[in-house]
Amino acid sequence: MISSTANPRVKNITLLQKKGKERKNQGLFVIEGRKLLQEVLRDAPEAIREVFVTEEYLSVPAQKEVLEDVTYEVVSENVMKAMAETMEPQGVVATVQIPRYDFDALLKKEEATWIALEDLRDPGNLGTILRTAEAAGVTGVILSGNSVDMYNPKVVRATMGAIFRVPHMYTEDFLGTLEELKQKGACIYAAHLSGTRYYDEPEYNGRTVILIGNEANGLTEDAAKAANCLVKIPMEGKSESLNAAVATSLFVYEAYRKRRNRK
Amino acid sequence: MISSTANPRVKNITLLQKKGKERKNQGLFVIEGRKLLQEVLRDAPEAIREVFVTEEYLSVPAQKEVLEDVTYEVVSENVMKAMAETMEPQGVVATVQIPRYDFDALLKKEEATWIALEDLRDPGNLGTILRTAEAAGVTGVILSGNSVDMYNPKVVRATMGAIFRVPHMYTEDFLGTLEELKQKGACIYAAHLSGTRYYDEPEYNGRTVILIGNEANGLTEDAAKAANCLVKIPMEGKSESLNAAVATSLFVYEAYRKRRNRK
Repeated sequence: MISSTANPRVKNITLLQKKGKERKNQGLFVIEGRKLLQEVLRDAPEAIREVFVTEEYLSVPAQKEVLEDVTYEVVSENVMKAMAETMEPQGVVATVQIPRYDFDALLKKEEATWIALEDLRDPGNLGTILRTAEAAGVTGVILSGNSVDMYNPKVVRATMGAIFRVPHMYTEDFLGTLEELKQKGACIYAAHLSGTRYYDEPEYNGRTVILIGNEANGLTEDAAKAANCLVKIPMEGKSESLNAAVATSLFVYEAYRKRRNRK
Repeated sequence: MISSTANPRVKNITLLQKKGKERKNQGLFVIEGRKLLQEVLRDAPEAIREVFVTEEYLSVPAQKEVLEDVTYEVVSENVMKAMAETMEPQGVVATVQIPRYDFDALLKKEEATWIALEDLRDPGNLGTILRTAEAAGVTGVILSGNSVDMYNPKVVRATMGAIFRVPHMYTEDFLGTLEELKQKGACIYAAHLSGTRYYDEPEYNGRTVILIGNEANGLTEDAAKAANCLVKIPMEGKSESLNAAVATSLFVYEAYRKRRNRK
């Protein structure tokens, strides 16, 4: 049993929880709690690296059962507290490999809905967007290099497991990636206040990209220019904008609705 | 200038920031930042009780201008830090009266979209729901007594000012209120996984209530029974549910879409 917070493996977990750079360098991130662990075991078991549990966690038969085929390390309550990012640790943390997706293959799909996020900053928003993306059958999520880190513990939690199932990719050349999508025949719809069409007007068929900007500043001018079509969501009252995750959800669910109706 | 954090007015602000009970007893809540202050000054100036600013805040002409007709108190940076809930205080906090709405008058509206929230717990979700509610022209938001406090600083921030414009009401008798709405001819649509119709099927005309449950547990059985119609949002992949604010937004925007199309 590991009972010292000075243990290098324990220290590495806290590093991975706090530092995006460490996650990037090591190619690993941390998950917490039974539910997320079960989802990785189901959806990406090969990605799990290390699992740490408390004795109390193991004392619940249903929780121990999940670990049947898994190598794990028992740690003291104190060590668990040090490793966990949540205020009330659930007794299990694990390191998981950052997934890589074959984007070239995905880009070949002729019926595809993409979400492109430019400099999205709020972890809760990103997590919620990934969760909605899975439900709405989105093909993949493309993020500009300045966006919030997908493997930030807050994002991981908010995705509710979708992080293991929705392909996503960071690109340092965001505008270049949009251009590439356009060359492949994709139509880019940018959520923009000066949009000329409402979000429920397009048919969103073929290769569709929903382009969403930063929470405070919206899209950069260059990104808005890269779009084929500026689209807006109608708003009443004195509202100036919607939450970024809500706006994204309305767009992808509208695309999904059109897709369902075409069937 | 107030420069001691022991000042009773300063202490009262921190109390109001931290304790829902104090907010309820005093009928007051706290707002932070220039943007929210401007929104109250525009939308509900009579509700402002006390305003506290730093000298640095006043040194910006545009910020001082906003306070032209307002009585304010200058406080030291230190005191501002103690009063502010945000990590990087913007130099102005104010106490504002908790609004009261004439629900009897609102209930008379024959074309009305209501949101009813049962035990919603996450402050960010509630703030986002209020923000979307304004944009989608929702008539009012009804909350069960166990829901998160609307005047919690995190909720206030996330509403982006909609808190001053969207009628909302807590009710200790949530089921009774739903019953009352039904007796007035309202049709209650409950977001429910066992729904028989999709969210984009109903016409949502007349008096419409969108009923949303707790983030972790969904609706109680009694609340689901009170509904006229269980409605679900289609989901692909292994998604089990959507974020509560996203689900609410999809429903109210669908109702809004139908309303726009009827015009």
